[in-house]
Amino acid sequence: MAEQDRTVGIIGGMGPEATVDFMLRVIKATPAKSDQDHVRTIVDNNPHIPSRQMAMRGEGPNPGPVLAEVAVHLESMGAEFLVMPCNLAHAWQSDIEAAINIPFISIVDESVSSAISRSEEGSAVGLMTTPGCFAAGLYQKALADVNRPVITQTPDELSEAMAHVEQIKLGNKSAKVADGLRSLANKLVARGARILIAACTEFPLLLDESMFDVTFVSSTDVLAKKTVALAKSES
Amino acid sequence: MAEQDRTVGIIGGMGPEATVDFMLRVIKATPAKSDQDHVRTIVDNNPHIPSRQMAMRGEGPNPGPVLAEVAVHLESMGAEFLVMPCNLAHAWQSDIEAAINIPFISIVDESVSSAISRSEEGSAVGLMTTPGCFAAGLYQKALADVNRPVITQTPDELSEAMAHVEQIKLGNKSAKVADGLRSLANKLVARGARILIAACTEFPLLLDESMFDVTFVSSTDVLAKKTVALAKSES
Repeated sequence: MAEQDRTVGIIGGMGPEATVDFMLRVIKATPAKSDQDHVRTIVDNNPHIPSRQMAMRGEGPNPGPVLAEVAVHLESMGAEFLVMPCNLAHAWQSDIEAAINIPFISIVDESVSSAISRSEEGSAVGLMTTPGCFAAGLYQKALADVNRPVITQTPDELSEAMAHVEQIKLGNKSAKVADGLRSLANKLVARGARILIAACTEFPLLLDESMFDVTFVSSTDVLAKKTVALAKSES
Repeated sequence: MAEQDRTVGIIGGMGPEATVDFMLRVIKATPAKSDQDHVRTIVDNNPHIPSRQMAMRGEGPNPGPVLAEVAVHLESMGAEFLVMPCNLAHAWQSDIEAAINIPFISIVDESVSSAISRSEEGSAVGLMTTPGCFAAGLYQKALADVNRPVITQTPDELSEAMAHVEQIKLGNKSAKVADGLRSLANKLVARGARILIAACTEFPLLLDESMFDVTFVSSTDVLAKKTVALAKSES
């Protein structure tokens, strides 16, 4: 890493494999000829963070305080900005930001900004997510703020997406799970979506752009590229 | 993670992709039904660690002080034991151990112990490694300590292995590189090795046991399984 590169703090473990997938995308997005050219990432792959889905359903503890604690921890270790490869956890972004003195880069803002720049003005965005992230309304608000129509999943489709995510978290990355997710995404296309946002960091473990006829925005990938750009930027 | 699970500190970045590969193997080796069942890992994916190969050739700075600093850092963050998914870096294990008050688990000791338990008494171990790790003599000493004959690479074979590792570090994981590594390993088998140790954490990014007629010990995998066992052990 160049002397002026910024150290990245990663609030991880949601889930652990999505964090590893994010780290791999950061590595691949970095122009590097040796180990020393890479970006420094400090990662807390932390299983103590309470379930975000349960908290959104009012059935479990608030993860905000633990997320804030991890963030403070990463800042004290030398992180110069923070990222969090979990979309739903951004429902507690204000708890994190209130606790730290370094920037926090939102996966939601970055994914929406990428979707806008990669699609025609006014075209509908298909929002593929989980029940908790849907209920939090993070993407609906961000897309409304830029006047973009959004095509959302039905409650049944959200439940089906969650069932697939649970399989992925159990380590099942079979073609059946991938086909199920792809079919859910294509329902949004059939209802008019001209671009898809995969607003859950488990989805890109099985889906990629080559599987779709429309532009597919992987929130993990967008955040990874932004992370490298910020770590390597000179200002 | 269960309350009594131990937090793992990972001295990472050597190379960054080998660290991520190690983390993925830790996740896969963990019996988990939810994010909360996983082991907590705190990772410093640190590109400031000077080149171990250059240091072994006497052409670059000593990485020992930086490795010790990273180790102290991880201990201060709550790590209860440390691992380092890089074989050659264990040449500076004494610098690390002198700086910390928690256990450091050696990839060399664990790999040799795994090789011994998986092969017939007295059978020859093929040591597949890089020039720096060969020069450090870590594995030769550990195998001599348990009276195991070792079949080593020639200087040309070590150089060829290093050229493949450099390709992997550049992101080239082509069949050509994999075939080159496999062919090098098979030369050790042709010279009498009855079990192979892949003593470089870049090798298992391309090689696995299914490719060989003899037992293949992935140092990355052995360390990952030991890490989970220790993190989950009750004593």
